[in-house]
Amino acid sequence: MANSSESAEDRLIARYFRPLARHEGAFGLADDAAALTVPPGCDLVLTTDGVIAGVHFFPDDPPQDIARKALRMNLSDLAAKGAKPVGFLIAVALTKETDEAWLAAFARGLGEDAEHYGCPLLGGDTDHTPGPVSVSIAAFGVVPHGAMVRRATAKAGDRIVVTGTIGDAALGVRLRGDASLGARWRLLEPMQAHLLQRYLLPQPRTALAEAVQHHATASIDVSDGLAGDLAKLCRASSVAAEVDVERVPLSEAARTALTAEPALIETLLTGGDDYEIILTLAPDKLAAFGSAAQAAGVSITEIGRMQAGEGARFLQDGTPLTFARPSYSHF
Amino acid sequence: MANSSESAEDRLIARYFRPLARHEGAFGLADDAAALTVPPGCDLVLTTDGVIAGVHFFPDDPPQDIARKALRMNLSDLAAKGAKPVGFLIAVALTKETDEAWLAAFARGLGEDAEHYGCPLLGGDTDHTPGPVSVSIAAFGVVPHGAMVRRATAKAGDRIVVTGTIGDAALGVRLRGDASLGARWRLLEPMQAHLLQRYLLPQPRTALAEAVQHHATASIDVSDGLAGDLAKLCRASSVAAEVDVERVPLSEAARTALTAEPALIETLLTGGDDYEIILTLAPDKLAAFGSAAQAAGVSITEIGRMQAGEGARFLQDGTPLTFARPSYSHF
Repeated sequence: MANSSESAEDRLIARYFRPLARHEGAFGLADDAAALTVPPGCDLVLTTDGVIAGVHFFPDDPPQDIARKALRMNLSDLAAKGAKPVGFLIAVALTKETDEAWLAAFARGLGEDAEHYGCPLLGGDTDHTPGPVSVSIAAFGVVPHGAMVRRATAKAGDRIVVTGTIGDAALGVRLRGDASLGARWRLLEPMQAHLLQRYLLPQPRTALAEAVQHHATASIDVSDGLAGDLAKLCRASSVAAEVDVERVPLSEAARTALTAEPALIETLLTGGDDYEIILTLAPDKLAAFGSAAQAAGVSITEIGRMQAGEGARFLQDGTPLTFARPSYSHF
Repeated sequence: MANSSESAEDRLIARYFRPLARHEGAFGLADDAAALTVPPGCDLVLTTDGVIAGVHFFPDDPPQDIARKALRMNLSDLAAKGAKPVGFLIAVALTKETDEAWLAAFARGLGEDAEHYGCPLLGGDTDHTPGPVSVSIAAFGVVPHGAMVRRATAKAGDRIVVTGTIGDAALGVRLRGDASLGARWRLLEPMQAHLLQRYLLPQPRTALAEAVQHHATASIDVSDGLAGDLAKLCRASSVAAEVDVERVPLSEAARTALTAEPALIETLLTGGDDYEIILTLAPDKLAAFGSAAQAAGVSITEIGRMQAGEGARFLQDGTPLTFARPSYSHF
């Protein structure tokens, strides 16, 4: 017979994902693989990160935001490494209950962010799972050859800078699970909305990638909490970090909650899902980096310095904080 | 405090996956991302495919073979596109029940294949899931610029060639689910073992990638069955295929089963999980491709030809076969 029937997977891909595959090397998702030409003199930077329903997001989160969060987690890694996004692959495991409206919204969110961040869909894989919905993304960026900013190259004497504000998502996820915390933390409605949104939808610092590449000695994106990720950078670089807790940038909402409940300092510093960048800089690079950040519209804050030794110390009024659970892990 | 504690995920990665990350751009899995230098004048070829317990493999399959199957499915895509493997990213979702022995065996299998196929681990992401174990891989290869072999470029008059044998895995998975089929199909013990093994562990035709790149007009890897995947190639190329069913290469085991139960022809042609390559060739390239395949130690068989029109027709004694379920889909 003339076998021209398409599978259910083919039809879903054609309807919802093919319109996103605008890169010529994606071949309209109608091939086994994609092709990508890396500009001469550049390295490809590769990262993979994913989300699972009930672990990294709430099953009833808006599908468009689940898609955007999954992509943005990867874009945050690329930005921290100083890389400009060039495209991504996606693997989606759907359940029998996933309806087309969910998938349409998911694809719409994915497409909006792919467009906004200049990171087109290159290819994908869809399956049905008896388990929770999951999304795994591999994202790719480019840097000049050898210019990927590493974790392992911080030096004693470097200043420590973070982007944005820290701890919002960690409060947001707690608030998402227990709405009564809003009153306990004395948060106005817009503050609660801010924290919830910061958990739902990270803001990858893609606009700052080039400045990170030009000025940072080392960097890491903050996904497992400021304390845990800075400790990783210290380990990789064989140096110590000393952070002045009073200088850690907090949103108005986080500061309000912290005033109501001072013990929240641990949640803020170790809670994770910030998707900000920690970077280290030689002191004479601070001014130029600050100008670049201002031009990119990203706030940055100097929070401490690297020194000989090991580990990340957080000083509050000169006294080191101790944390019950230093690094957040979904694992 | 001096936060130098590592998370559970960090420890598992360090113990089992870091030894596999021999590519210098993997940075020992101790960074946010990997860096890859694509050789000048080459394109990167990118693909992603994954497996879910209970969908693509049996939960009690040997963990080393689950890892190898997941990687080999992707290597098969690269081979079909004429690309030489250069590395891969892996995302693994484990359950609370996954013990370290399972993970150690999984990593061992992955490492053996990464070594054997010259495709080093570049990076990864591990999580715990409340659902089934799943493995998603993104694999990368290189071809000279513009030389990725497409699905969409077959021409009327081309000959159709397949590698290896067709249908073994489709019989193997049925046998895996119902051991009594061995007797019904009159299979000797070694034949049963052959079919089971063909399902468990694909043989990607990596050794043939360069010959495919040099000689094929178009190609696709056979993952959803010969009939369904050939139909995809026809659709993409806007041509028809006519296959002589008697010429489709079968293993001794498959031929024995088919003799016992002639209706199995549909399972063989549509069952999937073959991970062989369908390629189309100008007639004057057949001899050179045959020599290259012999040198690579891969059997190839001419099974039909492309012609004007649409769809893939399978002729048995001159009569077109009709299939109840033309293309296998896990979806």
